[in-house]
This record gives sequence, structure tokens and C-alpha cells, in this order.
Amino acid sequence: MKALVYEGPGRKTWTEVPDPVITDPQDVIIQVDTVTICGTDLHILGGDVPEVKPGRILGHEAVGTVTETGGAVTELAVGDRVLASCISACGRCPYCRRGRYGQCLRGGGWILGHLVNGVQAQYARLPFADLSAHRLPQEIGDEAAVMLADILPTSYEVGVLAGQVKPGDTVVIVGAGPIGLAAVLTARLYSPAHVVVIDPARARLRAAEQFGADVTLTPDEDPLAKVRSLTGGLGADVVIEAVGLPETFELCTTLVRPCGHVANVGVHGRPATLHLEELWIRDVTVTTGLVDTFSTPDLLAMLGRGQLDVAPMVTHRFALDDIEHAYEVFADPAHSGALKVVLSRT
Amino acid sequence: MKALVYEGPGRKTWTEVPDPVITDPQDVIIQVDTVTICGTDLHILGGDVPEVKPGRILGHEAVGTVTETGGAVTELAVGDRVLASCISACGRCPYCRRGRYGQCLRGGGWILGHLVNGVQAQYARLPFADLSAHRLPQEIGDEAAVMLADILPTSYEVGVLAGQVKPGDTVVIVGAGPIGLAAVLTARLYSPAHVVVIDPARARLRAAEQFGADVTLTPDEDPLAKVRSLTGGLGADVVIEAVGLPETFELCTTLVRPCGHVANVGVHGRPATLHLEELWIRDVTVTTGLVDTFSTPDLLAMLGRGQLDVAPMVTHRFALDDIEHAYEVFADPAHSGALKVVLSRT
Repeated sequence: MKALVYEGPGRKTWTEVPDPVITDPQDVIIQVDTVTICGTDLHILGGDVPEVKPGRILGHEAVGTVTETGGAVTELAVGDRVLASCISACGRCPYCRRGRYGQCLRGGGWILGHLVNGVQAQYARLPFADLSAHRLPQEIGDEAAVMLADILPTSYEVGVLAGQVKPGDTVVIVGAGPIGLAAVLTARLYSPAHVVVIDPARARLRAAEQFGADVTLTPDEDPLAKVRSLTGGLGADVVIEAVGLPETFELCTTLVRPCGHVANVGVHGRPATLHLEELWIRDVTVTTGLVDTFSTPDLLAMLGRGQLDVAPMVTHRFALDDIEHAYEVFADPAHSGALKVVLSRT
Repeated sequence: MKALVYEGPGRKTWTEVPDPVITDPQDVIIQVDTVTICGTDLHILGGDVPEVKPGRILGHEAVGTVTETGGAVTELAVGDRVLASCISACGRCPYCRRGRYGQCLRGGGWILGHLVNGVQAQYARLPFADLSAHRLPQEIGDEAAVMLADILPTSYEVGVLAGQVKPGDTVVIVGAGPIGLAAVLTARLYSPAHVVVIDPARARLRAAEQFGADVTLTPDEDPLAKVRSLTGGLGADVVIEAVGLPETFELCTTLVRPCGHVANVGVHGRPATLHLEELWIRDVTVTTGLVDTFSTPDLLAMLGRGQLDVAPMVTHRFALDDIEHAYEVFADPAHSGALKVVLSRT
């Protein structure tokens, strides 16, 4: 089969590789029907995730059709259309028993396209398939479903839930890429007073408005003054970091009110400065996190009921064979206007 | 009267000043019977808390006798023996209504010995007295009570409760000064598996054992290896920072397990480095905080029942007139062996 193989920082190729095979009775093999590219894949190519070794097939977000099941699989059958979640989960270790699947101690967690071969390929092996793949109902299309492989649950769990967004809050989201936009969409579920989005790209701010942001501005437009003016001088209840740079993280800690929350969602390659000389007295909570995907069934149900509209997230469509071009488009949103790019089997 | 007056970084003097007077109907005046010195007072003298201006009477931990009450005071009467809490609270603002008294928006919070004159004096004015002073039952002595003016509720609320210590946890406390020791004592209320204390001073580690630490070590004794060996390689569930230096904070973030909590209690004068390039994926929660003292009535009840023994905290006793000497002893624990020093009216 063909697959997108990482060859070291800055290098990848769509090339012929051996077909995946079942290596554990909890595996399934899927034919990949729809797949997308994640900002995390760009972080990998940028060298921010050194655990990814050359030779690895990238990708952790796909919808596919089960072609083979291991002997211990009970929830899935050949022919099922499934969402391949970015997180695999053994379901038995102390972390999985608490629903903290992202920190699975027995070989799960974020492994696809990271520690084992991923789904940017014609076929893929999904470990621990019973807990890691979700059978899709007919009313949910591939394109919408694949938005729930990673970005929706990530923004919801690591941003909105970890940040404890509640009705009436002022929520600030720094970064209006796909993760920031998914944070706007899922923060809205909690009926905040304001969703403020900060991003240098005007086109992305327009997209944020489409997803429900009521205040948008660039970092040059004095975010601190704007947030204070909205909040009686106090600052935001919750600030969600959706970029992954020291400066955007540090901006978040200046925008938060006493007793507020900074929820870091961004993938970081460098340390940030934590201004404890100001924060020690302000009762601030900072959270980091990898998604667990415990919320994926709930999000799928909301998607099926029409409560979440992810359609505007997909800006570009390609054939799977054209994935190298799709990476170029995705990596250059300033020119392409790309949010999520979707690749389909032809 | 005489009072301990801050004269700028490194300088203070026990000197004659005007008696305090009632300036608001919610005030009371107390005769100070028992008072102590806080590590925060040393931070102030070290220049870490620039909001404290020269001329300020220091001190925010006392037991006294009410000598005068403002017209709006309903809970206290002349002659009552009261604990003067380090936190004053208007009780009416949005933060106070949620019990977040430390962030009071209407002139409360940590004001004594900070933004208004404090209690290291023969007499003191206590603003918002109904919520900020606690009438003491006969069975609680002055020395024990004064440990609840700041350090016990601070370690309990900002360390143990914010860190979400739960039964079976491995709790690491970095720093075995009075705040660290109070964290040991109050963490024990949650029946953790281990309370590990790290401090360079062997005498303080012995004190930590007296308060209930079962593992004590110096920073040179490879805390990471020790904590990992206790926790199946995972790290601590909760790490409490009780020093206030960048290096001790950064040690805390290396000792915490995935999904664990770092609760900062220390007063910091400089920023720290937050290693987001390692932490982003580990589901770590970092909290900062100023005490609210919502727990003070509960802690007083536990003290009255004999459930908390704070007596070993007091190592030195002085007459109030001798406060400058008491500062010297308190500021040099390596030689004096001081934990808390108590000063009494003679």
C-alpha cells in the first residue's frame, strides 16, 4: 500500500510500504476512507516531537472501514464504518480506569502516527480497537466525523472542560486555527457571556466569528485592555491557549482574572516563563493536557442531533494520493486560507 | 503605642506610633495579646512585595482582646478574645460571595501589614471585623490559635485543597518551614500513602517527621529517583511548593505524575520556567493562591477537638517589646532552629 512516511525533521514522502497486519488480538485493520492532517503533524515535522522516529507513518485522524479483526475484538466487525480516534486505550490500566485514556500505561495513549504507524495511508492497524474506534451511525458523514478524531474532543476536554468554562463566563481563546475554532464551538455549549478570539490572521478571525466568537482581535489590538473593558477590569474567567508558543502562553497568563483558569491546549517545543512573582497571589490555575477522548461518544451524539456544526471547518479537499500537496496547503494557511484539509480514498 | 514599622527593604524598627482608631463602622480595635512573624514578613523585608510602603506596621497573625467596636459590628463585643485572621473580607463582593475572601474586591483580602497597618503592635485596627476576626473558645490557647491566623489555613487551602490531596496519594512537600510543616499536618487529614518532605535543613526534616512525614530527604539526595521508587515510576500525585524560589517550583514540576497537581504556596519574587515542552502532554495542573481563610472555623474546631496538634510549631517565645530580636531569630533558622516564634504582651 502507499503511506505518508516521516523521514526526519522537515521531510516526509508518500511512498510504497508493507500492508499493516494484525499483531495483537485487540487490533483491527481498516481501509482508510477519509483522513486529515493535524497541526501536531506540522509540529512533528518541525522537530517538536522527538519521540517520532524516521520511518513512522504519520496521521492520527481518520474514518475507515474495518477489513479484519483480531480474535479479542468484540465491538466491531468487518465492514463497520468507524472513526479512528487519535487516542488508543487499553481500558485496564489505572489511568484508563479513570477515563484518562491519553495517559494509558499499557501501550495506548497517543500512539497513532507517533509511537506506532498512523492513518495517513491506504490501510492502518488500530490497536485496542474496541475502545479506540467508534462505529459511526449512517447520519454522520465521513468529513464531519473525522473532525471528532482529535480536534473537537481535544478543544473540548483540554480547553473547555479543563478550563471549567461555565455560563456567564468571559472566555478568551488565543489562536484561531482548527483547535482554537473547535474551542469556540465547544465553549459555546456552556453559554458564556463572551467568547473573545485573538489571532494575527484576519481571515481566521472571520472564521472564529462564524463559529460563535463575539469579539475578535489581533495581538496588536491591545488584548489586555479589550478583555479588561469586557470584564469590569477583572480579566477573563478562562483563557485557552491554542497555539503552542511561549509568547502566546504568557499572553494567556496576563489575560486571566484572579481565580481564573488558563487551559493550555497548544503543543509546545520550548519552555515558557511563568510569572509567579505576579501569579502567586492571584489564585490562578494552569492546566496542560493531552486529550483522553472520553467525550467522543457525547460529541458524536451532538453531531448526529445537529447540535454541533463542524462543516465550516473543512476548507480544502484532496484525493489521498495528493497528500503531499495537501500538506503544503495546510502548512501555509496565510496564503491558502486552509483550516482543515480532508483527503479521501478515490 | 509601640509598633514594628517597615522602613524599606531590609529596615524595620519597634517604635512609638499613634494608637489606631476606628475609621469605618465595620472595624474593631484589639489589644494585641499574642502575635507571630510570618515568612511573608521576611519576603516583604527582602523587597519581594513592593506594594508594602515604608511607614507600614507589619504583621497579619495575632490573637487579641476587643477594646472598641464600630457601629456596624454585630458578631463581636468589647472584651471578646479573637483570632485576627490574615485575610479581611467585605463579605459582599462577587469574590467574597463565593468564599474567595483572599481576592475581595472592596478593600479586603490580605491587607493587614500589607496595604493597611498590621498587628505587630500593642493595638491594631481590624477592618471588616465580623468576617475577619474569629471569637475564640476557652479551650483554645493563644499560641495554638495564632497558628491559624495564616499558616494552617494557607497550607490547607492553597496546598492540600487546591492540590486535591486524596486518600492513598503520594504527596511531596518541597520546603519544611512553617508552611511546609503545616502542609504535612493538614495533608495527613486525607490519609495519603506517603508524605515526602524535601528540605536542605536536617533539623527541619526531623520536624517534618514529627508532624507526620514518612519520607524526608535533602535536595541532594535525588528526589526524582526517590519519588519514582515510591510510586511505581509515575511520580507524585500532588506536589506542594512551600519555599517561593524558581528552582524549588521547577523541582515540583519534575516530581509530579501525569494527571497530577502542583500546588504553589510559596511567595515568589521572581519568575520561574515552565517546561511546557515536557508538560503539555502530561495533564498537569498548576495552581497558585492566596489563602481565603474560609476553612478557619473548621480548623479551629479540629484544634478544639485535639485533632490537630500545632504545639510543636512554636519553638521560641519573646515579649512583644523584644520583637526586633525575635525577627533575627526567625530569619536565621539554620542557627536558631526556629519554626514559629511567638510574642506576647507582658
